[in-house]
Amino acid sequence: MSESKSLIRVEAFSDGVFAIAITLLILEIKVPEIDSIHSTSDLVNALFHLWPSFFAFFYSFGGILVQWIFHHNLFILLDKTSRRLLYTNGFLLLTIVLFPFPTALLAQYINTEYAMPAIVFYGSVTVINSLAWLLFYRSIDKPKILRISIFSDKLLNKIKRSNYFTLIIYTSTTLLAVWFPYTALIINIALWLLWIRWSLVEKE
Amino acid sequence: MSESKSLIRVEAFSDGVFAIAITLLILEIKVPEIDSIHSTSDLVNALFHLWPSFFAFFYSFGGILVQWIFHHNLFILLDKTSRRLLYTNGFLLLTIVLFPFPTALLAQYINTEYAMPAIVFYGSVTVINSLAWLLFYRSIDKPKILRISIFSDKLLNKIKRSNYFTLIIYTSTTLLAVWFPYTALIINIALWLLWIRWSLVEKE
Amino acid sequence: MSESKSLIRVEAFSDGVFAIAITLLILEIKVPEIDSIHSTSDLVNALFHLWPSFFAFFYSFGGILVQWIFHHNLFILLDKTSRRLLYTNGFLLLTIVLFPFPTALLAQYINTEYAMPAIVFYGSVTVINSLAWLLFYRSIDKPKILRISIFSDKLLNKIKRSNYFTLIIYTSTTLLAVWFPYTALIINIALWLLWIRWSLVEKE
Amino acid sequence: MSESKSLIRVEAFSDGVFAIAITLLILEIKVPEIDSIHSTSDLVNALFHLWPSFFAFFYSFGGILVQWIFHHNLFILLDKTSRRLLYTNGFLLLTIVLFPFPTALLAQYINTEYAMPAIVFYGSVTVINSLAWLLFYRSIDKPKILRISIFSDKLLNKIKRSNYFTLIIYTSTTLLAVWFPYTALIINIALWLLWIRWSLVEKE
Repeated sequence: MSESKSLIRVEAFSDGVFAIAITLLILEIKVPEIDSIHSTSDLVNALFHLWPSFFAFFYSFGGILVQWIFHHNLFILLDKTSRRLLYTNGFLLLTIVLFPFPTALLAQYINTEYAMPAIVFYGSVTVINSLAWLLFYRSIDKPKILRISIFSDKLLNKIKRSNYFTLIIYTSTTLLAVWFPYTALIINIALWLLWIRWSLVEKE
Repeated sequence: MSESKSLIRVEAFSDGVFAIAITLLILEIKVPEIDSIHSTSDLVNALFHLWPSFFAFFYSFGGILVQWIFHHNLFILLDKTSRRLLYTNGFLLLTIVLFPFPTALLAQYINTEYAMPAIVFYGSVTVINSLAWLLFYRSIDKPKILRISIFSDKLLNKIKRSNYFTLIIYTSTTLLAVWFPYTALIINIALWLLWIRWSLVEKE
Repeated sequence: MSESKSLIRVEAFSDGVFAIAITLLILEIKVPEIDSIHSTSDLVNALFHLWPSFFAFFYSFGGILVQWIFHHNLFILLDKTSRRLLYTNGFLLLTIVLFPFPTALLAQYINTEYAMPAIVFYGSVTVINSLAWLLFYRSIDKPKILRISIFSDKLLNKIKRSNYFTLIIYTSTTLLAVWFPYTALIINIALWLLWIRWSLVEKE
Repeated sequence: MSESKSLIRVEAFSDGVFAIAITLLILEIKVPEIDSIHSTSDLVNALFHLWPSFFAFFYSFGGILVQWIFHHNLFILLDKTSRRLLYTNGFLLLTIVLFPFPTALLAQYINTEYAMPAIVFYGSVTVINSLAWLLFYRSIDKPKILRISIFSDKLLNKIKRSNYFTLIIYTSTTLLAVWFPYTALIINIALWLLWIRWSLVEKE
């Protein structure tokens, strides 16, 4: 009983961190300052010029939401926690908590001529984030007792392979972004859309 | 068991997002800057001039609270989750997370001559929010197994009709706000008060 | 079952709001700006001059914590929810969410000659907060079925009387604060300390 | 049943506070202001110059995460709550909520010649934090009924001794920091790394 209770608290803490990180994203969208507004159309224009902030908000919201769904679907298949799992889950949460910063960075610089470092930085966070998932999968690999019976090694290996694939993609697009930032960003967004699409049609 | 556990985590994550979005609203009310205060009555005046911030705070707090109560009452009638439900619920949460921004926008511009775009923007978020509810209802429509037995198609259709009505109202008042912003806002507030009143007297 | 599940979500949502409101208080303490620091002792002085912020932080943290403990102890004695309870609990949470603002106001103005409006404003929030508790108690009064069997009318009336007493005290000190702000504040702090002391020694 | 329900809410509220405090840390990392950026390499440099913010973020994230894991492991061994426990746990949470402030202070001043007060302040918070843990352990000492049967006095005394040790270390390094701030900081980081390492290898 204490073991499943342990799992419940790890989920509750993780849910809290995911929920806060995803909600803090909105704080990065700033209301146009009243001093720069001299007519109704000024305000309309100022709101339209916030599109990079909204783009970054939707992009990161989707990214965190998809990961929360993954986390949620994965924990249903777990039965116990281990100390290593608490730490690898903690490191995974650290990479989730990071997102509001590259999101604000992307929002600020995406439509300037200095977009490259912002896109590369965002990409680097997605790489670290993928690495964190890999470490997490490793922590549920060894003591098989952590998983419920239907969560086979075969299924875990399938998930891991898909994680390695994501890691390679994100590393490649992040490197690509140094020379072709917008191309890399568009590839990432296309993959992100495919990922959501795929996860929706996949049989449960 | 894993299915009901899944439902519990969706509720926990949703509760977290609702709770954070509703609490972040207070951060938009800024303390009067000390440099502009030269007497006690200056500070009294400055506090009174915060009324648009407090108005926007109460308005959005009420709007999010009512939706949390709806969400809460609806999930009691659910039995399982599906992947589609996770995404439509996620999109619904996205529209909830948006609110602190139009709230701050409304607070900043409601008592200026540039109120129109702020009221239209706020209205647009309520339209998107209504659409998100509609998508959510669709996701619990098809596999009837998601609902507990007493949650009949008839009840769901009743809820959906009321949602379509809300969507039409919000779309109309948002369009109206382009020409008559304050009239549209007053209609929305009146409906908001009626809604709370109605939900209180409705037999449970 | 669905009824007790309902209660669990109300608690979870309330816990979330209490936890966020209490944690947001720290955001009001601002790091001394580096431009104004020209020596190590400048920074030491600047940190000491933050005492109003730390005072306001501890005062409000204590106030919210005590209320969370009350809320927690009260909900143990509840068995079901009603729609009215959802709304009165929501209004109570609104008054909790308000606190970060008067806290920041108090921190900014307590050691200036314009302290009076800040102390009166803080007091007004405590009055509204007491009224919200009263409304909440009323919502668990009527349908006796909401309470577990050991939560008698006698006990509820005892709690209500203590609430009326708090309401009268806070209203009086808030009025007093218009003429004698610091006296009123000291009385409130003394009561706050007594309250914590009393709630610790009270037999459970 | 109401007793274990009480424990669940204390955990839920604590999880919320831990999760929010750990997530708010990211808000202290500010996006480089666009006015100071005139080339892509300016932005790259500006991002590299954020290292003190990232260092402070990782350091505090780790510190709060380790404490959440401790809190989580300890509460598994508890069976009931007492009023004293609610208050000592509340005081412990207060010291957790404090962390975003010294973290921002450290980030701002660590690579300036005024680092000393920032490091001493951070150290003081860790001392208060250790004292809060000690108070918490005392509150689960006396009524033995609060603990589950396998949570012996011997185990509690072992944990307390380790807590006294931590308190002495933090007090010493905080005093040391007045004269040798960076040495003290490096010792604390080394201990922090050892602590995580030790808690990972310790048999469960």
